[in-house]
Amino acid sequence: MSGRNIPYKTYLEESELPECWYNVRADMQKKPAPLIDPATGAPCSAEALSHVFCDELVQQELDDKTPLFKIPKQIRDFYRMFRPSPLIRAYFLEEALGTPAKIYYKFEGNNTSGSHKLNSAVAQAYYAKAQGLKGVTTETGAGQWGTALSMACAFFGLDCRVFMVKCSYEQKPFRREVMRTYGASVTPSPSETTEVGRLINREHPGTTGSLGCAISEAVETAVSTPGYRYVLGSVLNQVLLHQSIIGLEARAAFKKIGVKPDVIIGCAGGGSNLGGLIAPFMGEKLRGEADYRIVAVEPASCPSFTRGKYAYDYCDTGRICPLAKMYTIGADFIPSPSHAGGLRFHGMSSTLSELYDQKLMEAVSVKQSDVFAAATQFARTEGILPAPESSHAIRAAIDEALRCRAEGREETILFGLTGTGYFDMTAYQAFNDGTMSDYIPTDDEIKASLAKLPAVGEKC
Amino acid sequence: MSGRNIPYKTYLEESELPECWYNVRADMQKKPAPLIDPATGAPCSAEALSHVFCDELVQQELDDKTPLFKIPKQIRDFYRMFRPSPLIRAYFLEEALGTPAKIYYKFEGNNTSGSHKLNSAVAQAYYAKAQGLKGVTTETGAGQWGTALSMACAFFGLDCRVFMVKCSYEQKPFRREVMRTYGASVTPSPSETTEVGRLINREHPGTTGSLGCAISEAVETAVSTPGYRYVLGSVLNQVLLHQSIIGLEARAAFKKIGVKPDVIIGCAGGGSNLGGLIAPFMGEKLRGEADYRIVAVEPASCPSFTRGKYAYDYCDTGRICPLAKMYTIGADFIPSPSHAGGLRFHGMSSTLSELYDQKLMEAVSVKQSDVFAAATQFARTEGILPAPESSHAIRAAIDEALRCRAEGREETILFGLTGTGYFDMTAYQAFNDGTMSDYIPTDDEIKASLAKLPAVGEKC
Repeated sequence: MSGRNIPYKTYLEESELPECWYNVRADMQKKPAPLIDPATGAPCSAEALSHVFCDELVQQELDDKTPLFKIPKQIRDFYRMFRPSPLIRAYFLEEALGTPAKIYYKFEGNNTSGSHKLNSAVAQAYYAKAQGLKGVTTETGAGQWGTALSMACAFFGLDCRVFMVKCSYEQKPFRREVMRTYGASVTPSPSETTEVGRLINREHPGTTGSLGCAISEAVETAVSTPGYRYVLGSVLNQVLLHQSIIGLEARAAFKKIGVKPDVIIGCAGGGSNLGGLIAPFMGEKLRGEADYRIVAVEPASCPSFTRGKYAYDYCDTGRICPLAKMYTIGADFIPSPSHAGGLRFHGMSSTLSELYDQKLMEAVSVKQSDVFAAATQFARTEGILPAPESSHAIRAAIDEALRCRAEGREETILFGLTGTGYFDMTAYQAFNDGTMSDYIPTDDEIKASLAKLPAVGEKC
Repeated sequence: MSGRNIPYKTYLEESELPECWYNVRADMQKKPAPLIDPATGAPCSAEALSHVFCDELVQQELDDKTPLFKIPKQIRDFYRMFRPSPLIRAYFLEEALGTPAKIYYKFEGNNTSGSHKLNSAVAQAYYAKAQGLKGVTTETGAGQWGTALSMACAFFGLDCRVFMVKCSYEQKPFRREVMRTYGASVTPSPSETTEVGRLINREHPGTTGSLGCAISEAVETAVSTPGYRYVLGSVLNQVLLHQSIIGLEARAAFKKIGVKPDVIIGCAGGGSNLGGLIAPFMGEKLRGEADYRIVAVEPASCPSFTRGKYAYDYCDTGRICPLAKMYTIGADFIPSPSHAGGLRFHGMSSTLSELYDQKLMEAVSVKQSDVFAAATQFARTEGILPAPESSHAIRAAIDEALRCRAEGREETILFGLTGTGYFDMTAYQAFNDGTMSDYIPTDDEIKASLAKLPAVGEKC
């Protein structure tokens, strides 16, 4: 490796930390569809949303014209604890693959939340504090978002109430304990503390919960508790805005080393990482300044882009949240319990959905066992144990690098390594033991789930 | 934080990665006592040691004259994956403590092994490979060392057999699984695969094992399996040599920002981190070029420096390893099961023991619940969830900072943050639940254990 021009890790200086987030919607000619109030069928007003979200975040959510939002000083100070994150050249992986491709990854796992989620958590906690709120509520599945939010709330002195999908609560006691260490209260969902939780428990005795159900509980708690608002770690435009820091830093680091990527790959659940990673590159593409292949990678077991429908759908099981137009496989779709790899939301960010619909990006789906095979190869060569979510992007990056080898092409590949897998060892164990299975929903299952899309979808 | 001269994190460039390790023994006038062969009572020869350790490592172990050892290129390449590690200014912790002290920490947790252990693991695996060996054996307690060695062996294509203390094997299935993901075989100790393991199981039916017993099993396996050698993650001179990279980088980073520490604090179990962190600073002190207060921090439940005796002792329960002169509380001492915070070896590096005996460094012991209180405060202010081991140093650093506040002194404190606590959440849970207890051995307990020191101790 010595003697190579480009270092293994490229770090920006703290002084080069981006001063603004970038709002990709500002450069989109056809904008993402607005959130719809399920009660009226009309677009949600700022006033209506402000019962659920912090005021400043509502402005960010609805603003599809302003390209740059200044990052407040206190958020930038917090960012300095773990950012700029490194852009890493995967020399050892390239060597193992025997590919002429140059592989880079933007690594977001070097912080205690273990993922990129902290980028938006600190922003949302800051605005809640600035508004004089007492606390926030949220849901968490795998626990990355809940951990990130707990850390941010501890820092700003905000109360943090996390509804954790019951099966995760039981299977991941250590994730729960990290949140408690940061002072958060963690409630298994569905719980008896909310109306919607009690209803779901009554209708589905013994249920182990779902993300959609935990969202409903968190929203209900926020709107019914004075001084509280709800915060969400993915899907929303505001989240993609905050996460644009990933792409902005990656682009700046590439400029520093004089490299331009050809292919940009991100895993996609609700879209927080993918949307953030690609934002500035997509902006260049939208403005006709550059071209990139942009690839979303999703699990074959929860394939909203590749097998879903672009329509209005509910975001939560309790159907109390605004409707979003998105690629969806239906709000009632719940991935098989054998699905371990995260990325289990039934829909996808409206912004990414619109970009995908405009064919400005591609999407592929990958099977779970192939994802863990890639994760293991990556861990052994690059020395980082990746999160299952991130490993979807690794799988696709390896596949692209092998294509480059077959075609003799020296393409430059960038992928987002969103986090580490230290709390996902149960899934790794299944892979190591050879007991991991690959569930792929049938066409009939997806059709049945899509049959329940709300009527408002027809109108838009 | 903006406007402050010194960044939150100081990173050296990869090109500034130290080219040599530093051997502090070369600058010691009175050298550490040699290892003794228990069979002969005479110092171990290189030939005798080479049955247990790799040849090159034996040379490093015995050489107390050469100050600098060139780091082989392949090790430096591996280091580039996670080094140089950052020197971090704890602005937020200083603010929370209201102290005029300036607190810095050298953070070694940003790699998948979760600690500084990887610095020596890669070196030992490299030399084993270079010697043409098939594999290595080792023991692990908390699992940091086993994980680090598994990673290094995966990288160099070596077989790795880890004997994991049985209670840890059962209580930390995720640690075990990380090692398996890196291709290591992990055997709970005492096992039925070794003579010493079978003996211990027969004599102590139902035992949950100890580090000393796992060492015996690993050594027996290494010497009885062609093409294998034993490697160890602490205590030995070779390990301190490799770990000097920590101190060398810290000193270089301080030079870069024009700062000189007054107090240097490290947690101490067998001494791998402490010895590495302080090495170049101690060198300056030994050569009369500078002065520093150097403080070792150990658990009150396993207090080798503060309550032990400086004498020859066994390193392992099976008594098949060479004897070392060290501060020890006796090879038969096993910390209470309520002790969660790592650092449970009964003795201490011979080099550090000699430096301590020469009063070139101080030692303090801290109680477990105080350690976790410091860990939690640190996590909430600095955003990093520390390993219990590292948190001993945090406790002492906070105490020093509070002293500075009381005395109105602007001292500069450096401590070693050796790793992260993601696999230690059971201990955090006990603290969060208020069920953590503070065990401190009685004088009689330590006396009873010291009564069994080997006779050779008397002669030296």
